[in-house]
Order: sequence, then C-alpha cells, then structure tokens
Amino acid sequence: MDFETVSYDVQNNALVIIDQTLLPGETVFLTLTTVEQAREAICALRVRGAPAIGVAAAIAYAVAAQNIQTNEFSEFSLLLSAVKDCLATSRPTAVNLFWALDRMEQVLTDNPGAPIVIIKKRLQEKALEIKQEDVAVCRKIGENGAALLGDGFGILTHCNAGRLAAVQYGTALAPIYVGTEQGKKFNVFADETRPLLQGARLTAWELNQAGIDVTVLCDNMAASLMHTGKINAVIVGAARIAANGDTANKIGTSGLAILAKHYGIPFYVAAPTSTLDQACATGADIKIEHRQGTEVTELWYKKPMAPKGIGVYNPAFDVTDHTLITAIITEFAVHHNTGGAFSWQG
Amino acid sequence: MDFETVSYDVQNNALVIIDQTLLPGETVFLTLTTVEQAREAICALRVRGAPAIGVAAAIAYAVAAQNIQTNEFSEFSLLLSAVKDCLATSRPTAVNLFWALDRMEQVLTDNPGAPIVIIKKRLQEKALEIKQEDVAVCRKIGENGAALLGDGFGILTHCNAGRLAAVQYGTALAPIYVGTEQGKKFNVFADETRPLLQGARLTAWELNQAGIDVTVLCDNMAASLMHTGKINAVIVGAARIAANGDTANKIGTSGLAILAKHYGIPFYVAAPTSTLDQACATGADIKIEHRQGTEVTELWYKKPMAPKGIGVYNPAFDVTDHTLITAIITEFAVHHNTGGAFSWQG
Repeated sequence: MDFETVSYDVQNNALVIIDQTLLPGETVFLTLTTVEQAREAICALRVRGAPAIGVAAAIAYAVAAQNIQTNEFSEFSLLLSAVKDCLATSRPTAVNLFWALDRMEQVLTDNPGAPIVIIKKRLQEKALEIKQEDVAVCRKIGENGAALLGDGFGILTHCNAGRLAAVQYGTALAPIYVGTEQGKKFNVFADETRPLLQGARLTAWELNQAGIDVTVLCDNMAASLMHTGKINAVIVGAARIAANGDTANKIGTSGLAILAKHYGIPFYVAAPTSTLDQACATGADIKIEHRQGTEVTELWYKKPMAPKGIGVYNPAFDVTDHTLITAIITEFAVHHNTGGAFSWQG
Repeated sequence: MDFETVSYDVQNNALVIIDQTLLPGETVFLTLTTVEQAREAICALRVRGAPAIGVAAAIAYAVAAQNIQTNEFSEFSLLLSAVKDCLATSRPTAVNLFWALDRMEQVLTDNPGAPIVIIKKRLQEKALEIKQEDVAVCRKIGENGAALLGDGFGILTHCNAGRLAAVQYGTALAPIYVGTEQGKKFNVFADETRPLLQGARLTAWELNQAGIDVTVLCDNMAASLMHTGKINAVIVGAARIAANGDTANKIGTSGLAILAKHYGIPFYVAAPTSTLDQACATGADIKIEHRQGTEVTELWYKKPMAPKGIGVYNPAFDVTDHTLITAIITEFAVHHNTGGAFSWQG
C-alpha cells in the first residue's frame, strides 16, 4: 500500500492524514479543512511523530490562510497569528511543530507589501516545500544511517519513527528501509510502546506492509531481549534535541539507552536537523508533555485494568542524556558522540 | 476487605482461590475440587505469585489425596505421583511449586507403612502447615524489610509480589505493609507490568484496599520516574533465586535493576528461602517460561493493537544478575550483596 502520511489536497484546500488512532484495525484517511480540525488531530495523535506534526501544521496553516477573506495585510497577518497560536499549543515537546510554523510565518515577514492572493499562493508553495523537504531529508537520514547497519542485524526500535511519523521513510526506520533496498536483511524488534502502542500498532504495521521482518515485544522485555545477544543496534527518533545532544523522545527511550549502554549495544538517534533546538542548552530546558492518566488505565481495555481513583504517572516523553547516545544521524551526517558535548560537525 | 488469597476449605475438601484474572473488575472466589481445575487455575494465572502457587499446589495435592479410593499404599502413592506431575508441569519457573510438592510427597516417604486414612490426614495437615508457614514467613520478610524503608520513601515495585502473590502480606509488599503498621508513610509506584498488568490490576488494587498511596505507571516510565528523584528504593519479589543470588522474576525486573544501578537507587529482592534453589548455580540454569504471543497482542484490547501474523517475543520472566541486587530480604535476614557471590549468611 502506497500512501503519504500527511498530504495537501490543493484542489480541495485540505490537509489529508491517515488516522493513526485507528491503525492497524482500520485504514481511514481524514480530510481536514479547518484549523480546529487540524489541532484536534494533532492533540488526539491522529497525526503524530515530530516530522509529520511539523508538515501537518504547515499545511493546516496554508489551508487556513486560503480561507481568510480579506485584502488587508494587517488583518490577514493578525488572523494567521491566531492560527499559529492555535496549532503551536497543540503539543509542547516536538520542536518541528514550532519550526514549521515559524517558516510559514516567515513568508508573511518576507512579503509585507505583496497582494494577499500572492501571499496565499506562496504559503501554499511553502507548505508543499516543507512536505517535499521532509521526504528528501528522511531519505538522506536513511542513506546516512544504513551505513551503520550490517546485513543480518537485529535492530530494536521504540515507538514509531517510521513513515507514519513523517511523510515517507521516517527517521529511525529510514536506515532500515534504505538498508533493505540495498539488499540487507534485518530482524526488527518493535517495543509496543505503552500507553498508546505506537510500536505494536504502527511500527509493526508499516514494516509488515513493507515485507520487513518484525517482532513486537512489551517495553519491559527489552533488557531480556538484549541479554539474548540478538540486538546489534538500537535506533530511535527524536521529538527535540538540545544543543548538547540530550534528546527528548517518546517515554521509555531513556531507559532503553541505559540498557543499551549496560549491554554494550550502540544506541542511535535519527532525526532531521529541524529537531535540533539550539535554544535548549540541555535536556533540562525541554518541556515534557504529561497526558491524562486514562490513556494508561482505560483507553485500550475491554475490562477494568486498574482500580478507580488511583494515581497515574503519564509523561509522554523523557530525555535521554547525550552521554548515552552513540551517534545522532541527521540528513547531513552521522554525528558521533565524541565523549564531551555532542559535536554537530559531521 | 479481608481474605486469604489461597485457602483450604477442609469441610468441602476444596482449594479456594480468588480469581486474579478478574481483578480489579470483579472479586470472585473459585472453589476447586480436582487436580485438573487446580492445574488450569495455575496455568491461566488465576492464582499466581511464587509463594501462592506453592501453597495452592500443596492444597491441591492434599485435596486430590482425600479423593483417592484405595487402601493400598503402592496404588495411593502411584496416583499421587501422577497428581504431582500434573501440578509440577503447570508452570516451569517458580521454584516454590516444586518445593511445596516435594514437601507433600515427603509425607508419603515418611509414612510408608501407615494406614491410608492416617496419611490422608497428615497430607491435609501438611498443606495447612505450608499455608500457615507462608503467612509467618511473609510477616518476617515484612519485619526484616521494613527496617530498610524510611518514612516518606518513594518505593517502586514491579508486577505483584503482595498479598495476592502469597496467602497474606506478600513478599515485596510485606515491608510496605509492616512499615505502614509502624506509622511510616510511603508513596508506592506500581509498574503496570505488561502483558498481564499484575501491577496495575493487582498491586494497585491491594494497596488501595489497604489505604496505602499508590500510583501506576507504564513499565517504560520507570527511568523517567527515577530521574525525578522520587524513588528511594525498588523492591520486587522472586520466582527463583540461584545459589549466587541471580534472581528470576517477572519479565522487566532485570531492566529495572539496571536502571536502579544507573540512578544509584537501592534494588531489593524480597523472597522466602523456599524461593532459593541451590541446585541452580547461576541464573543461566533457571528455565524461563515463554508464553503465547496473544497475551501481548490480543488479551486486553477492545480493538486490534498489532497486525495479524507478526512475531511476538513474550518471556514471562527474566534473570537479574546478582551484581545488580543491593540485598535479598528473606524471613531470616537482610542478605547484603557483598560484592562477589551472594552471601546467604545474615
């Protein structure tokens, strides 16, 4: 099945996404025409993954811009400022969201006197450019990362940083797709990734669709699996990377990195440079989203799985200390951890 | 609510257990009168937890013995040998099962010439003795372990090694119950413990019933939680402990131990000495049960949470290297890790 996770239906002026909350049971594409719909889709994780969120926000911004009925630049600008705020507050941790919205807003800054119809056109082009860039960038991440993965490798990944987290290829899974194209065989192990099961639902689904061997395990089985010697590399995506290399990613990532270090297994982060936030010196500066406890206690279950009224700890992300990361793979290079602060020179 | 997790209804010659697969939604007690029913209950985890399995097997053995219609010692002995085999093959990892069955069989060995009616009576007494010993032993574990837990401690536990895993008190939770009796306040954090959610369902239920503060987290959130500084100790139970201190326990335990070491948090195992298997020199000698993949992909969910046909890695236990264990708490003492092989001298 070929598809784009996030796309722009220019003819109908709509953001089109695959509803990831319904996978793998149902494959449903949603056509979103308002900023409120786009915001809801991001909040509810119908579209998720740092690169995909960025692209979706850019398209939602362009869609909203087309619908604004004014010829006054100041009013147009003011209304789009509200659109940006609405989208920017949908999720706090992934920096690509803010990066993409800033790039969209820059179109206004760059064209202060231009007719609204021209700016609308340029916003549409910019959104499509951001989307196409994502495809190209993920492809490069795949090529750079594939060099690290030997034929026959057992590879453990967490959450979903695959094509469902981007437009195509993905980030953490891009080296696996490109390596497979190169004729390598991998055994991929996907942490199910509680509470929302992005690994079991999404990573297993997309790798299975691509004919790549995939085995699901519960998150707490990773140490046992590493102990068997079957894992040659761990590779994950990123929601935000601080200047020193500390990496916020889906909850559970930092624990995996500690286990990988214990077992002497290389731990790779794969992410576009749009995920790098130089404004955060370290991971301590990264805001971590906490989500409602019912995601843990109720969402998936057909019978009660926790008593009513108990407390629930439910952070959506954690921060992996840069000292635990073997290398960060971007579209430009494999940035190896040189011991001290992370080096961004390839 | 006061109850015994496992008990012997002598009047009706039945093993009575609380069906733990239905908690916390329903509180149902099962009255089991045949060895097949008892075996099914152990296989299906209606009764689970190393000490509880041992007591349940002893009672099931005694129940079966009462129903044997013969006055011939050799026939009686042969039939009970089949009963033992049937129960012993129900689950492979917890050693208490074999320990309890060996103790029951010893009654036959010790009374070769006695009339069957006398042996039946002694088997009944032995089963009740094993059950009462469990209560006393867990109480002592609680007293020994409580000394390690300061007032105000945040304590992380995994799976359920509480009263639901024994007759009363439990093992890992016994120090929490006894410490609470002593007036200490604890904040207990319970890993939900995928795939079967013994932490979210059982530990949260029994601590909540006892009025002890409990917060559930997904297994992959433990590193994040430790990073906050809220955890002062990790305490878990054991299915089997090798002579050198390597400990088989619920899958996920070894990963927690590695995380605790990384964060400098004491990691305690609490278990009766019946869990110690001197016949296993190290953890490598312990047989690990692997269970069906549908426990991971289907059991709890109201909609598909993994694609059909993918592989599933589902070991029920893992082995924690003794070097990662700060101390093992038994009914006799707190056995501190002295660096090399584990010392069983208090």
